[in-house]
Parts: sequence; C-alpha cells; structure tokens
Amino acid sequence: MISSHKMDFSAWAQTNQIRIEQVLDQVLPSSDLAPQVLHSAMRYSALDGGKRVRALLCYAAAEMCETDITIADAAASAIELTHAYSLVHDDMPCMDDDDLRRGKPSCHKQYDDATGLLVGDALQSLAFEVLSQANLCPQASQQVSMLNILAKAAGSRGMAGGQAIDLASVGKSLSQIDLETMHHLKTGALIQAAVLLGASNASQPEITAVRAYAKNIGLAFQVVDDILDVEADTTTLGKTAGKDANSNKPTYVTILGLEQAKRHARQLYADAINILVPFGVKAQRLRELADFIMQRSF
Amino acid sequence: MISSHKMDFSAWAQTNQIRIEQVLDQVLPSSDLAPQVLHSAMRYSALDGGKRVRALLCYAAAEMCETDITIADAAASAIELTHAYSLVHDDMPCMDDDDLRRGKPSCHKQYDDATGLLVGDALQSLAFEVLSQANLCPQASQQVSMLNILAKAAGSRGMAGGQAIDLASVGKSLSQIDLETMHHLKTGALIQAAVLLGASNASQPEITAVRAYAKNIGLAFQVVDDILDVEADTTTLGKTAGKDANSNKPTYVTILGLEQAKRHARQLYADAINILVPFGVKAQRLRELADFIMQRSF
Repeated sequence: MISSHKMDFSAWAQTNQIRIEQVLDQVLPSSDLAPQVLHSAMRYSALDGGKRVRALLCYAAAEMCETDITIADAAASAIELTHAYSLVHDDMPCMDDDDLRRGKPSCHKQYDDATGLLVGDALQSLAFEVLSQANLCPQASQQVSMLNILAKAAGSRGMAGGQAIDLASVGKSLSQIDLETMHHLKTGALIQAAVLLGASNASQPEITAVRAYAKNIGLAFQVVDDILDVEADTTTLGKTAGKDANSNKPTYVTILGLEQAKRHARQLYADAINILVPFGVKAQRLRELADFIMQRSF
Repeated sequence: MISSHKMDFSAWAQTNQIRIEQVLDQVLPSSDLAPQVLHSAMRYSALDGGKRVRALLCYAAAEMCETDITIADAAASAIELTHAYSLVHDDMPCMDDDDLRRGKPSCHKQYDDATGLLVGDALQSLAFEVLSQANLCPQASQQVSMLNILAKAAGSRGMAGGQAIDLASVGKSLSQIDLETMHHLKTGALIQAAVLLGASNASQPEITAVRAYAKNIGLAFQVVDDILDVEADTTTLGKTAGKDANSNKPTYVTILGLEQAKRHARQLYADAINILVPFGVKAQRLRELADFIMQRSF
C-alpha cells in the first residue's frame, strides 16, 4: 500500500514526492560513473524536481487500481524522466530559450548546450530502460503494453508532436479547438500516460474512466498554467512569468480571455471529478489531485 | 527466409537495403499527418539512408539464428531509427555543427534547429514504439529484453555517453584504451545492439559469439572511419571529410598513425571472423559484412 486513505492529502503527496525522489536517485546513474559530467547533469535536471504532479497522478491511479508498488515506482519514474527530458530540451536556445527552471539555471545554462542536448536524449533512453527492466510485471505482455503507452505518449503524435505544433503556432491565431489539440499532445499525452501506466493492470471500466479523467485534468492543468503565466510572478512560478504571452504564443487567456479561461478550467475539473464518482473512496487521491491542480491558481 | 545462402553478398545486401527502406517507410508517420513538418523532417532524416550497415548486421544475425523475419524487421528498423536520431542531433550546431549528411543538407539545415531537436527526440521514441508493438514476439519477455538492450545501448552508458566523452575529448590527447572505451560506447553499443536484437532468441553460445563478433567489428568500423576521414574526399564520404582531424579530435590515426591504424583494423577483422568459425555457413552474411566494412577503405 502506498498510503492509508485516512492520511490527509498533503501528507500523502509529501510521502510520494519523497518516494519518487528516492526512486529517481536510485535509477539515475551516479555522478561518479563515467561520463561524469553527463551523469551529473542528468541528476541536476531530474532530481529535486518541483511538485511531481505526474508521479503523483501515477501513484494515485495505482492506488485506485491496486497496482503493485514496484510497478508504480517504475512507471512514475519513467514518466518523470520523460518529463525532465522534455523540460531540458524545451529550455534550449533553439526552443523556448529559457534560462530558469524550477528556480535554478536551466540545464544548458548550468552546463552547456551540447550537454543539455545529450541529457535530454539520455533521460529519454533511461525512461525506457527503467520500464524494460527484467521481470517488472508478472505478465511480460503488460510491460510491453506499458512501454508502448510511453513511447506513443512521448513521440511525434504525442509530446514531441505537441511541441512542434506549439513552435509552429508562434505569432499565429489558433482556434480553441487547435489549441486544445496542441495541448492534448504537448502536456496531455504524458499526463494521460502517467495515469494509464499507474492503472496498467486495471479492469476495462477503470481504464476507460482514468483515461477520461486524465484527458480533462490534463487540459485543466494547461489552462491553469496559462492563467498562472499571466497572474503569477516569476518568483512564485520558478520560471520566467509572462513568457508565453511575451513570445506571442496563443494561450487560453489570449483566446478566451481571463474570466472565460477560469470558467473553462472549472468545467474541465467538474467533468474529471464526475467521471470518478463510481469508484468512491478508491479514487480519493485522483480527486484530491484534481483539487490540487486547480488550487495552484485560484 | 530473408535470402538464400547462395545469393551473392551484394545482391543480399541490396535486397535487405530495399527491405529496410520499405519497413521504415511503413513505420514512419506519413507527411500528410499532423504535425506535417515534423513528420516530413523525420522521413527526410530516416529514409534514403546510406548503406544501412546496422540493419544489415541485424538481418545477418537474424539469418544465423533463424529469427523470425517480422521480429528482424522491427529490430532493424528500431536500430536504424535510433541511428538516424543520433545523426540528426550530432549534426546540430551545439554538437558537431555539420551542414552535410549523406550528401544532403543535414536536418537542421534543411529545416531549422528546433525541428532538428524534435526530429531526433521523436525518432528515438518511435524506435521504442516499433519494438513495443503488441504481439511482436511469441514470448513477451523476449520483447521486454529487446527493449532493454536498445534502451541501454542508446543511453548514457551507451551511445549518448560515448558522444559526451567524444565532446569532452576535443583538444585532449587520449590513450588508445580511452579512445576504445569512447568508441565502444559511441558507435559500438548500437552495432552490438543491432546484432543482439537480430539474434535475440538464439542459444547462449550463439549470443556470446555474436556479441564478441559485434565488439570487434564495431571497433573495426570506427578505425576504418578514422582512416577514411583522412584518406577519402568529401564527395566519396557524403559528409565533410577531414572534419575530425580539423576539429582536433583524437582518432585512431592521430594516436596510432595511419599504418598502425590499418594494422589494428585488420586484427579486429581477423578476430571477428575467427569467432564465427564454429557456425559455418549460417554465419556467412556476418562474415561478408565484416569484409564489407573493411573494404570501405583499403
């Protein structure tokens, strides 16, 4: 068991944030091991990493579906490694060119551009290495399916594809539908993968429910991000605030306006919560995570 | 059967070069599919790709070990996608900064740096997607093991790690042992993975033999590359000649001298051939590929 249902959410979240940090610390090669700079930069980029929302979603789905904790650990760390790789590459000069990440210099600023490129590449490989360790699942076919979920979520019709659409959209006006497609890929695909990997051995009704939950909460997460980009300051955010608006990227706020964007986030949240009703107390952590994602802003 | 043992080598190689091209064409998303630019750039970078030595090694090992052709196709394409991703990233300005690849503008020159970055990222994901397709192997545990071989070969203790050591070695003098360690990682790891994936369901003596064969032939390949970098011109090479020597990178030629480097390559070749003796005609294509790798230069 990851935790008791009676533990309050912040204690549960903290327990699992510490847990994922320890798992990643084990999984990442030591800085003493050659090539030392690369390994040290991988650890710099993947450890001590923010709120770990994706890992928490994975653990929460695992709790709902009674997934073995060893499998949940591997899944959560593979997801966080994939997320960390994407942040390192997104920050690079040819992409978003961001000097700050989680309140620290971004990887290519702390090291150099070549190291940033290789760190991202190697973190992606490591995510697949973790998930393909021998005898992780009682049924190897389940493990193959988990690897396939991650590969699709990361690739050109997932996260990398969303990033490509995002870059191509700078300076363009997008419809709300196009913006949603972009975010479904750019952030939604990995959030959905986090929940699906956590629930990877669940029954079909559970999988259908968590997929729909993840779709709604993934979008809500992005809408909230866009709102935060306008409303929060750089210190609170740990990354450069107003970046998206300043770089002329379409956001939910630019398309819908601030009030309508907030209303949209609330609707997505309500839909996500509604989907979980049949699962009662088992879905408690997923429900609380939906609250947590909303409370980041308003 | 991939081919008859009686087909001559160049016909066999051509048959399998056409085969891998068709497999990759199927595996890569269509350029009509969104995001179109990303998919078109992925196809630009991964199709029409050189001699396909890694795919040929994979097919040759599959032939020796009687691996199912569907599995060999998936393995060979996963290896070629991984290789293509590494070339796209290696050519980028923050790495080797090379404008030319296989006689065409390199990906970031044909498109832009951001697209080059995302193409490499998405090609890596696609390699794992191909290998994790449902029901590829009769035993899913074999498939998990293949995925783990690829992930390790690509990661920080494989190809990406070798690249990091290579970058760190610019302007330094390396011992022959350090240079071999770097090449074992940078090019050797993926060549070894190509052979091991092709032989993935083989007997232990066969796996031990092809691993040792791959280690020798991987190094020979690199020594020949270093010799070619000095002796060939840019047109023959399809990439900028003299690049490594000019950029002050240690090579076998700078460390051993030209004649000694050639002798070293011949010794590695002889060792590789020797390992295959017990396997007779079954190992014919692996033997011929060793010849082929040597004949690129002298």
